[in-house]
Amino acid sequence: MSELRFDPVRQKWTIISQERGGRRDVFLPSGNLSPREKDGKCPFCDKGDGKLPRPIFAIPDKAEPSKNALIVIPNKYPVMGIEGEFKRRLSGMFESASGIGAHEIIIDSPRHGLKLADYTEAELYNLFLAFKVRLEDLNKDIRFRYMAAFKNIGKEAGEKVSHSHAQLIAATVIPESVEKVIINADKYYREKERCLFCDIISEERGCKSRIIAENYEYVSFCPYASEFPFETAIYPKKHEPVFSRISDSSITQLADIVKDVFARMAALLDNPALTLALRLSPMKPFRPDTKGYLEYIENSYHWHIEIKPVITVRSGSAWGAGINVNPLKPEDAAQYLREVSSV
Amino acid sequence: MSELRFDPVRQKWTIISQERGGRRDVFLPSGNLSPREKDGKCPFCDKGDGKLPRPIFAIPDKAEPSKNALIVIPNKYPVMGIEGEFKRRLSGMFESASGIGAHEIIIDSPRHGLKLADYTEAELYNLFLAFKVRLEDLNKDIRFRYMAAFKNIGKEAGEKVSHSHAQLIAATVIPESVEKVIINADKYYREKERCLFCDIISEERGCKSRIIAENYEYVSFCPYASEFPFETAIYPKKHEPVFSRISDSSITQLADIVKDVFARMAALLDNPALTLALRLSPMKPFRPDTKGYLEYIENSYHWHIEIKPVITVRSGSAWGAGINVNPLKPEDAAQYLREVSSV
Repeated sequence: MSELRFDPVRQKWTIISQERGGRRDVFLPSGNLSPREKDGKCPFCDKGDGKLPRPIFAIPDKAEPSKNALIVIPNKYPVMGIEGEFKRRLSGMFESASGIGAHEIIIDSPRHGLKLADYTEAELYNLFLAFKVRLEDLNKDIRFRYMAAFKNIGKEAGEKVSHSHAQLIAATVIPESVEKVIINADKYYREKERCLFCDIISEERGCKSRIIAENYEYVSFCPYASEFPFETAIYPKKHEPVFSRISDSSITQLADIVKDVFARMAALLDNPALTLALRLSPMKPFRPDTKGYLEYIENSYHWHIEIKPVITVRSGSAWGAGINVNPLKPEDAAQYLREVSSV
Repeated sequence: MSELRFDPVRQKWTIISQERGGRRDVFLPSGNLSPREKDGKCPFCDKGDGKLPRPIFAIPDKAEPSKNALIVIPNKYPVMGIEGEFKRRLSGMFESASGIGAHEIIIDSPRHGLKLADYTEAELYNLFLAFKVRLEDLNKDIRFRYMAAFKNIGKEAGEKVSHSHAQLIAATVIPESVEKVIINADKYYREKERCLFCDIISEERGCKSRIIAENYEYVSFCPYASEFPFETAIYPKKHEPVFSRISDSSITQLADIVKDVFARMAALLDNPALTLALRLSPMKPFRPDTKGYLEYIENSYHWHIEIKPVITVRSGSAWGAGINVNPLKPEDAAQYLREVSSV
């Protein structure tokens, strides 16, 4: 069973999940953290042993309704398990909590070997629909305060199974980085009676230099203080704190703009590995006694997407120095991405 | 000229340093961010063109005093430049600051091709002495509020020149992660009238399960909420907020325990790449008007070292989910490191 531990210096929770490793040899260069995928075998499609667990959710294939276009299954190697009661504990001077949570895998295409350029709008539509449905459902579990929804593409982004998939993690604690953004956005709203994210959209659309593309409902841009080359954000233009309230037509628009960003990055950067993350507000209060939490985020939070291509060598310097160095101006990154063809 | 930019959502400064990149092709898989080191040539030793800038500081070789055992030089490709005045600016709704700073390279051994197991105590003594001397000097520049001192070993840790070296960055702004630790440590002290870090030492030495080794002045251990496998901290056992007050005999003790950790990791993990970072308090206030800053950190801060071996594949999941997953219990990591021979 995994455990959540709180670092009293850095003020951060970390999941200690020994099930995923633990043996000494897996950390040697010759070791292998992902024994699931052997040559030619894929645990997520027909090429594997076919022994997938029963889907939690499925979207049938329109062309061939007896098959599924997308399925959601529990992760066989979850970072946290769903069973049990959430308990906080004191261990000496340190705080820990039982590692209760949900960890689901969204297999978002039956096609094996997808590259960034290969994703269709229909596949991306299904992915965001699955995020919506599963987030709504997981949110009913009163133990979960925060949900993470993200997708790694490519081995360099840490993907352990190469067949296309996304992940959902529901946790009983709120990551420090998320809490900070929520509190900061609320402070901004109280001061100005305007949403910080709406202000950023208005600023970016006004000055245009960091904009990549727009459609009716969404805008993609390279953020002003991008931490990495070609870091990209996608914001809904209309103020909306809660992702799972998204309409069908808005999912279509979202799939359209994500497909556009993927195509541009694939063309410009030769199908890079990347991580796409939904940035969601926790749906429950930080502390059990906080009243009116949904009112609290209703005006001040604004869900969005962040995309981080993995193209530079990982540097210890950002960790060592405590500050990121981005070797590419976001204005230049946006210009490169604007100028490349997205079809 | 580079620029500091503040992210209004994440509340973090990032250095935008186009000098180190900028051209589109350097981001392609075939591109190369580090054109400095061609086969067989090393810019940091005799094997290179020998055109190193005049050292800022040097430690003569004891055996051969006409040669240097260590030199400190300005970085030829600094992330920030030393010339100019520090100015904060508003750019639309965003904040930026001129990228003024110092970026020095400490070439801490004349020996080319050092692996983790190869460092001698004498070399590590020289490294920490150089950190002390240069930190003291840079601190006299009233523009600099924060200094980062760190060392990457190995390409997987992001080293761009493979010849052993460390780095010093002096910045006009304080990284968000550093400010958070300082404020938290102060809050802890005000509540308990005890240093948070002294309490951690007492806890770790009491329960022993995460301790790797101790000498007269220092203790090495795997922190309770380690974010990565084999993450290691080295704390001075006596309360001390300011690293650069370190005595000669204490540098000897520090070199001894760092050598011990290096040797254990080298033996257990086959000379892994790693980053070693000095965790220092800013030496000037967060805001220009804060009074009594040195009194503020005197009781509550406690300098220390963090070491992060690079052994698992970089995963986008921590970034995507906002929370780290550590697949190895720190108690097990410490036991592995304790049991391996350090000689």
